[in-house]
Amino acid sequence: DAAAAAAAAVDPYASDPARHPSLVARSERPYNGETPGTLLAASPITPNELFFVRNHLPVPHVDAASYRLKVEGEGSRSLELSLDDLKSRFRKHTVTATVQCSGNRRNEMSQVKTVKGLAWDQGAIGTAVWGGVRLRDVLQAAGLSEDDPLVRHIQFEGYDKDPASGEIYGASIPLQKALSLYDDVLLAYEMNGQPLSADHGAPLRVIVPGVTGARSVKWLRRIVPSPVESSSHWQQRDYKAFSPNVDWDNVDWGSAPALQEPPVTSAIAEPAPGTVVSVSDGEITLRGYAWSGGGRGILRVDVSTDGGSSWTAAKLLPPPPGAPPHGSYSGAWAWTLWEATVPLPKPGADGRLPPALELVCKAVDSSYNNQPDSIGPIWNLRGIVNNAWHRVSLPLEP
Amino acid sequence: DAAAAAAAAVDPYASDPARHPSLVARSERPYNGETPGTLLAASPITPNELFFVRNHLPVPHVDAASYRLKVEGEGSRSLELSLDDLKSRFRKHTVTATVQCSGNRRNEMSQVKTVKGLAWDQGAIGTAVWGGVRLRDVLQAAGLSEDDPLVRHIQFEGYDKDPASGEIYGASIPLQKALSLYDDVLLAYEMNGQPLSADHGAPLRVIVPGVTGARSVKWLRRIVPSPVESSSHWQQRDYKAFSPNVDWDNVDWGSAPALQEPPVTSAIAEPAPGTVVSVSDGEITLRGYAWSGGGRGILRVDVSTDGGSSWTAAKLLPPPPGAPPHGSYSGAWAWTLWEATVPLPKPGADGRLPPALELVCKAVDSSYNNQPDSIGPIWNLRGIVNNAWHRVSLPLEP
Ligand SMILES: [Mo]
Ligand SMILES: [Mo]
Repeated sequence: DAAAAAAAAVDPYASDPARHPSLVARSERPYNGETPGTLLAASPITPNELFFVRNHLPVPHVDAASYRLKVEGEGSRSLELSLDDLKSRFRKHTVTATVQCSGNRRNEMSQVKTVKGLAWDQGAIGTAVWGGVRLRDVLQAAGLSEDDPLVRHIQFEGYDKDPASGEIYGASIPLQKALSLYDDVLLAYEMNGQPLSADHGAPLRVIVPGVTGARSVKWLRRIVPSPVESSSHWQQRDYKAFSPNVDWDNVDWGSAPALQEPPVTSAIAEPAPGTVVSVSDGEITLRGYAWSGGGRGILRVDVSTDGGSSWTAAKLLPPPPGAPPHGSYSGAWAWTLWEATVPLPKPGADGRLPPALELVCKAVDSSYNNQPDSIGPIWNLRGIVNNAWHRVSLPLEP
Repeated sequence: DAAAAAAAAVDPYASDPARHPSLVARSERPYNGETPGTLLAASPITPNELFFVRNHLPVPHVDAASYRLKVEGEGSRSLELSLDDLKSRFRKHTVTATVQCSGNRRNEMSQVKTVKGLAWDQGAIGTAVWGGVRLRDVLQAAGLSEDDPLVRHIQFEGYDKDPASGEIYGASIPLQKALSLYDDVLLAYEMNGQPLSADHGAPLRVIVPGVTGARSVKWLRRIVPSPVESSSHWQQRDYKAFSPNVDWDNVDWGSAPALQEPPVTSAIAEPAPGTVVSVSDGEITLRGYAWSGGGRGILRVDVSTDGGSSWTAAKLLPPPPGAPPHGSYSGAWAWTLWEATVPLPKPGADGRLPPALELVCKAVDSSYNNQPDSIGPIWNLRGIVNNAWHRVSLPLEP
């Protein structure tokens, strides 16, 4: 209405939705908030209201009744589809998939050397059962063929727009991913059985399983089959990583491919940092998550209580509903939660304790990819894809 | 003939073929030999006679004229195909693909703690242009459908047989990989334009691009569509990795999936170990390879001359003929050769030099997977998939 429009002209964030008080805000305008570790580890499916929120721009409010999705580009007929069209003309599919911001765990990278970006801890990740229609089915309805020589990428545009520059949020994925029968790319209108909320892209968003969250465009406005990638800032510049000796003064953005599938990662979600550990308890239970890009399942998580000198395999908890068995070679779009109960150090002959309990975890995916040991050698100026071993140092008391 | 049969009864290795003197033998019975680093780095396509040889058993001699490939198993008609049938009834395809033994670089792992297996350095890897027919086309000719509920794996059996136990070499790959239009799995009868040699699987072998060499079964006798994986020793036990605290006394072979796609790796091939470096040269040129499983291209190789404290991106050499651009998200089956010319340390104010030049390389693939820093935390009892940073320490002189 007119009042909302006037308010938005003054403050484009004025009509942003309310957020759950448990989310830890990393920025307010645009809003970005993460899930605390203990809540992450509490459930294989992240409750909607606790799911991390990653907004690049003010939240657009899109009326579901008048919503239209456009498909227009190379090699395809133009389509305009209402939400009802999508629901009635295409088969519904559900996919259990983890979505992670590529800046997850950036905070740790900044401790090595400052990087630009939101100061995420380990909570810019969550898992939901997404419901919607297959992108593949919609593209086939538009007549797109995988043999079309002019189409190599599927671009997505959102309804979110930069109030200053007018730039529209956009991203793209390779055509092969978009059309694959196995890659389960969805146009989702449901999250855990509920209609999408405003923060999560109502009324329709893309879910690209196994790919970094930035490509799962929210508030989807337009799908554009194209010979080239999206020209957006977020495809061409933001989500790329370089050698540790490359910084803002010498970066060549064109020299690296846009991040699509992220590497294997894991984190200790419990105990929380700062927890004081009593060695008299004899043992301690760690809980956390592990996940890899490209549908590569987690085959093992190793934990250490001595900073990485010795290791024990954690217990992998049952896959979330709808997810395949642990260690699957493909289609493992959802994270693996794990737990490990490990002995605490005993005081030495002199009665002294180690200064701290140095917890570490690292995961292995079904391509036997391991996480790198340390952050320095994977440091990159935007602070993305930090998948070094996750470390939590806890004070010890008798 | 009778004389050969009599000799084989005495010594099953008596009729093994001659090998090129440049190959470095790691065992003689069965023969296993690797390519020296300087020859590896010399060419994006490895010459046939210098290509590493990995034999699990005595080399079978299969007559090309009377050769028959059998396809028999679930969900398919039985087929028997001569080499001429394969060449005349199916379209020929060529694929440029790297093949690597999963034990490549095992020697380094044994330096941390002894592992069982062939003592490979970095040369159990090579790249060729393979010519043959698509496995997918042959399976479709046998009537196999990707929807068949009883078929999940495609098993391969070789003509090679253990002279003591009678066990036949076998392996399998997931059905999805076998049938994919994009995965380029070949039944190859040519290697770099020549008919396969005896050591490389004459007259017909499997080439599974992006997958560890053990699945590219040589001297192919039978293809078996099946609900289950190959029951062979090499599928069920040999090619799996476990937590570093698991050893021969407590290993549960069933607890890990069989290795298929290996992780990102790289190696310095030049200068060779032992090369004495004169700091007065001012700079030094390193050459090597980088490769990842699953068709993930190499997007960057970093090198260090100070043991990993600082890094510079190497120059990636042009992709081998037939290979896609660097950093491709898929279909990058061939390695990336690289080189880097880097400054040598200067003597300090006291005229002293560092004790040695500590060269390191590490690669990043198109899923932004990095190599782990060190070997200890990925140590595994069979010594496979050692993809830690590759280090070469060279003596320095003025
Ligand atoms: Mo992100
Ligand atoms: Mo191997």
